[in-house]
Amino acid sequence: MLAAEIHHRTEDFRRVYKTVLEDLRCLFGTSSSDVLLFSASGTGAMEAAVSNLFCRHDRVLCVTAGKFGERWVELAGSFGLCPIVLEAPYGDTVPAARVAEALGRDAGIRGVLVQATESSTGVAHDIEGMAAAVRATEALLIVDAITGLGTSVLDIDGWGIDVLIGGSQKALMAPPGLAFLSVSTRAWARARASDLPHYYFDLRKEKKSAGQGEAAYTPATALVLALAESLRYIREIGRENLISNAQLLARATRAAVQALGLELFAAASPSAALTAVRPPAGVDSGVIVKQFRERFGAVVANGQGSMKGQLFRIAHLGYFDFPDLFATIASLEIILRDLGRPVELGAGVRAAQQVYLEAQAAS
Amino acid sequence: MLAAEIHHRTEDFRRVYKTVLEDLRCLFGTSSSDVLLFSASGTGAMEAAVSNLFCRHDRVLCVTAGKFGERWVELAGSFGLCPIVLEAPYGDTVPAARVAEALGRDAGIRGVLVQATESSTGVAHDIEGMAAAVRATEALLIVDAITGLGTSVLDIDGWGIDVLIGGSQKALMAPPGLAFLSVSTRAWARARASDLPHYYFDLRKEKKSAGQGEAAYTPATALVLALAESLRYIREIGRENLISNAQLLARATRAAVQALGLELFAAASPSAALTAVRPPAGVDSGVIVKQFRERFGAVVANGQGSMKGQLFRIAHLGYFDFPDLFATIASLEIILRDLGRPVELGAGVRAAQQVYLEAQAAS
Repeated sequence: MLAAEIHHRTEDFRRVYKTVLEDLRCLFGTSSSDVLLFSASGTGAMEAAVSNLFCRHDRVLCVTAGKFGERWVELAGSFGLCPIVLEAPYGDTVPAARVAEALGRDAGIRGVLVQATESSTGVAHDIEGMAAAVRATEALLIVDAITGLGTSVLDIDGWGIDVLIGGSQKALMAPPGLAFLSVSTRAWARARASDLPHYYFDLRKEKKSAGQGEAAYTPATALVLALAESLRYIREIGRENLISNAQLLARATRAAVQALGLELFAAASPSAALTAVRPPAGVDSGVIVKQFRERFGAVVANGQGSMKGQLFRIAHLGYFDFPDLFATIASLEIILRDLGRPVELGAGVRAAQQVYLEAQAAS
Repeated sequence: MLAAEIHHRTEDFRRVYKTVLEDLRCLFGTSSSDVLLFSASGTGAMEAAVSNLFCRHDRVLCVTAGKFGERWVELAGSFGLCPIVLEAPYGDTVPAARVAEALGRDAGIRGVLVQATESSTGVAHDIEGMAAAVRATEALLIVDAITGLGTSVLDIDGWGIDVLIGGSQKALMAPPGLAFLSVSTRAWARARASDLPHYYFDLRKEKKSAGQGEAAYTPATALVLALAESLRYIREIGRENLISNAQLLARATRAAVQALGLELFAAASPSAALTAVRPPAGVDSGVIVKQFRERFGAVVANGQGSMKGQLFRIAHLGYFDFPDLFATIASLEIILRDLGRPVELGAGVRAAQQVYLEAQAAS
């Protein structure tokens, strides 16, 4: 791996780094916010938002509909903020109206922290609606879009998203290890007033270095080079197509699993990044996940934490395409059949094929 | 890059992750401390030590002999500690006796933060001497060995080093982006009492996950796989040989540049990881660095910050070997000659060759 490396304090690397930041800004689709990068998992950028933009004892709304929402609550608490939790049961979402209501009750709320896509349960939040509610207040809107970026439309400038967070894995198709976030003018103003400790995740320091084509600390150069390639590819196909591909695959996945008599775990507001499916009654989803892995070499995720055994999650983002989906559904059909379920082989695949053909006809 | 990836929540990856942690522990050479890994630059692990092991207003000794020592001072200040600075001029080191003296004056000092190797100036600190001074006190000894690990002997258990910090690049020969640190029993006791905020860099959470072969947050899987290969190679050649190779190359480099009439920047306590050299009088070291890059495609580093133009740094660690050194010195001879210096071509190379041959004869 090192053979393909570039030393980080060279003009060659600075050129790549600048291009990556510019391409990220295009992918984020913002002309008014800065986009910065950290060598860390996505959670690092979530921490950067919390530790750079708030003050001790600030009240923040944490909108939570699953494991990653709970991460916001933990993070805010760790840094001495006062999290006010707006919770939805797993599989549901928190409607924008509840956010508006909470903001209306308390004019002192300084931030709204939410997931665009809660990947533990496969739901998508109404970020546009929440942004409309936040805009008139003093709160910053901070959106974890680690699985949302490149799978859903998130209009930073048009809706007013102060911080949008992404990661190098998921729809960005590079290995994990890089996190990035956009920072609005409103957020920068808040950064100047923050009294929370931060050092590695320092937005202002990172912005200053970015201006010189560098990272504040030695960046994960190999991952930056891989990300540069992914971003070049996304630029080539167009970010709209990256998003609509995920959306179309999501639709086809839902049609397929429903054709097989399975229920969606998140029926009301399913995400385009992944589809969470309930196993047949009496079956532990872990059995399905295990068979996918052992018989077909496919990674389909089990539920996490208290959801373990109760759902399985099919991802369909980034380079994932229809043939991958056909293969996944055909494998699922065999697994269900061998579990003794009444399955018409090919019925799920057919439902996915029909979505594909309709989309082809319409285009 | 993604083609060679493994999903991080799989048995395959857990196996690799566990092996990496075990191999790191062998490389660190400790049987009493835990070794943990973060997906971040080395600075991330430095932050982890500060934000997990101290309390607000704790007094800590920051031993600084260059840019990375100054990073300890900044980090401690960022997290609300009270740094007491023991400083040496660039090119010198802080003797262990000064640390002992400072600890003797103030029994309330809770930590000593130091670099094993200060790579901005190429010096090595007397960690063994400092450990002896720290052992009898309440202070934790925290050693940044990002360039020291694999280039110098650092006896965690024997000397009593509470935290030793390393990174995936440098002597570990993998790309940057992973940081690791050892945590002693004494340090764990302190972690339980810490009141400083931390979330991404959470030692206790990371230890708990490591026990299950996982990282607390999505790790930089591609880098972990690369590191696994490096560690396998180090295990094969033996960590003692990795260290003695760097030490021998350092000796040869010093002999070579002195044979060319150049002065060492850090003559008193030079590190084995890199050699800092003063340019000839009246020459900006940037000119030498630039010629190395443009004429020979070699990365030799300039001085940083206020040292820019005043020194150049030749690294000789990890996979760096004698042929690399011969090439570097021969290139340097040409650069010096073309700068109008009286240079006998081959004289520097010959000095390096003699060190090589003497070592061969002795082995």
